[in-house]
Amino acid sequence: MAASTTLTVNYTRIQTLTSYFQHCRSKRWINQKTVNRRSPFCQSLKRHAATVVSGTGLAQQIHKEVQSDTAKLVAQGNRRPHLSVILVGDDHATASLLGMSSSTIFRPSSVSQEEMLELIDKFNRDRSISGLLVQLPLPEHFSERAICNAVAPEKDVDGFHIVNIGKLCLDQRCMVPATAAAVWEIIRRTGIETVGKNVLVVGRSKNVGMPIAMLLHSDRNHERPGGDATVVMAHRCTPLPRLKELASLADIVIAAAGVPHLITADILKEGAAVIDVGINRMQDPVTGKLCLVGDVDFEAVKEKAGFISPVPGGVGPMAVAMVMKNTVTAAKNAPTY
Amino acid sequence: MAASTTLTVNYTRIQTLTSYFQHCRSKRWINQKTVNRRSPFCQSLKRHAATVVSGTGLAQQIHKEVQSDTAKLVAQGNRRPHLSVILVGDDHATASLLGMSSSTIFRPSSVSQEEMLELIDKFNRDRSISGLLVQLPLPEHFSERAICNAVAPEKDVDGFHIVNIGKLCLDQRCMVPATAAAVWEIIRRTGIETVGKNVLVVGRSKNVGMPIAMLLHSDRNHERPGGDATVVMAHRCTPLPRLKELASLADIVIAAAGVPHLITADILKEGAAVIDVGINRMQDPVTGKLCLVGDVDFEAVKEKAGFISPVPGGVGPMAVAMVMKNTVTAAKNAPTY
Repeated sequence: MAASTTLTVNYTRIQTLTSYFQHCRSKRWINQKTVNRRSPFCQSLKRHAATVVSGTGLAQQIHKEVQSDTAKLVAQGNRRPHLSVILVGDDHATASLLGMSSSTIFRPSSVSQEEMLELIDKFNRDRSISGLLVQLPLPEHFSERAICNAVAPEKDVDGFHIVNIGKLCLDQRCMVPATAAAVWEIIRRTGIETVGKNVLVVGRSKNVGMPIAMLLHSDRNHERPGGDATVVMAHRCTPLPRLKELASLADIVIAAAGVPHLITADILKEGAAVIDVGINRMQDPVTGKLCLVGDVDFEAVKEKAGFISPVPGGVGPMAVAMVMKNTVTAAKNAPTY
Repeated sequence: MAASTTLTVNYTRIQTLTSYFQHCRSKRWINQKTVNRRSPFCQSLKRHAATVVSGTGLAQQIHKEVQSDTAKLVAQGNRRPHLSVILVGDDHATASLLGMSSSTIFRPSSVSQEEMLELIDKFNRDRSISGLLVQLPLPEHFSERAICNAVAPEKDVDGFHIVNIGKLCLDQRCMVPATAAAVWEIIRRTGIETVGKNVLVVGRSKNVGMPIAMLLHSDRNHERPGGDATVVMAHRCTPLPRLKELASLADIVIAAAGVPHLITADILKEGAAVIDVGINRMQDPVTGKLCLVGDVDFEAVKEKAGFISPVPGGVGPMAVAMVMKNTVTAAKNAPTY
């Protein structure tokens, strides 16, 4: 991953001089020396809101890298990277988001598992397809695990194949599940330090919380580099007082529980980095319209955190970008014969 | 796993009445109601040392279950479960420990990876072999990952095949790495509660710390039941003051770092359960002889903990028993045609 850690301030909503100094202050635990030199000036400033990390902005950065990598591959005489997406049922909302060279295959909810497995097998053998993604969730008559394991591991841009999960957990190079990869890239590209830091991951789902914990706790010198952080895996069996206790120790909080406003300002450490992975549909009490909210009480937490990623516009667009990045990686690794 | 949680007191070194009441006291956080009824009597007792969990005793219990399962399988007309062990190099110490119907194949350190892969392939296809184990570590000219992935997943009693690791991390039924399975069984058979408790796992190795964290944090209602605990993954990048802070919050501490006396009494919560997975060879300062010590300062911690597993005689014999249990499981799952 060609992650740059120098672009922190480029993709923030609050891009004023004061927010820059706030950014320095909130990074106190990252680089004490640097900040000490600035401290007389920083300390004279009033406490300001967190740096808001724009996932949309970072995603644009990745889009550019993907475009450039694609152009290089094609210039070297390779096939153009191609993503195929299989959508089952009537909700086709996500297809148009994917942007890159792609094809989308629609099947009705009544499609059988056998037909799907045949379709996947056909796509696995089609050398013009670099990456293959089956949109989850699937109707109830499917075994999602069987479908995920049917996709060839080298085309599995979702990173859900059993072998990709195994490799992820053994720190081997692999397709990393897109949302977990998105959180990783946000942390890296925002310059948030992880080595020896305390990370609280709230939520243990197999496609988000678990892989995020795997990425962040593992060794930075392994084949697939990890974050070398101390990682706490909390979830719905964690009693609330215990969650608060652990949150107050955390330098980084990853909220992936699917519980609106679970992470409030009072339980956080001043200056913590807060990445919101929650996507909850709620009715606006004033307008009555449906809206998206995360797991974090954004407005209040923004005043206390050092960094915060919003919902929408945070992890979401980054996850889409990571699918595209995975597709180019798949194309790079594909045999050229 | 036919784990019984009622045999706690049968396999303890300290098996007196006072140790039984101490056992009740140390379980205060497990079942407040039960203990409250006893508290006038319990509180009149002086604080006593922890219940020492005998891995040797628990292993004997598993040996009996394995023998009984084996007899049933054979009585039903199946082949006798058979474990094949491949040992490379000169250190043959472990072979004699394994006790059950087994064969051991020796190869010199000079054996090539290709020869080993051929041997494993032959054993994979041999229907008389239920379980296959290649003793690690291997000489430097081997890729241990390639060897682990060569063993057929259904015969992989070590649980190191990439597919078994993937299944483990997705909470699917699988061969669980023996040492992690040993820790799980010790906790279950000693009646130590895990749901909603704080577990500190110190050490993140791929065959011990990581799979233990996976078992203990995951959902008790999944295909492969988990412990539903809040799990902290700490390791050598965790600063010592932070380790102490997290240890003081832990109801259960799993020490698997390979650092002698890392876990001391002063950093623990009174009544915590401490499972020592460390195996460190040290010279006795008095006799000059080599001896085995764990990661826990046993003598001091025993006075503060609720439960403690010793080294030697704790996780070690249980891990051997779990290899045998995995072998019988492999035999049960083998096709009978």
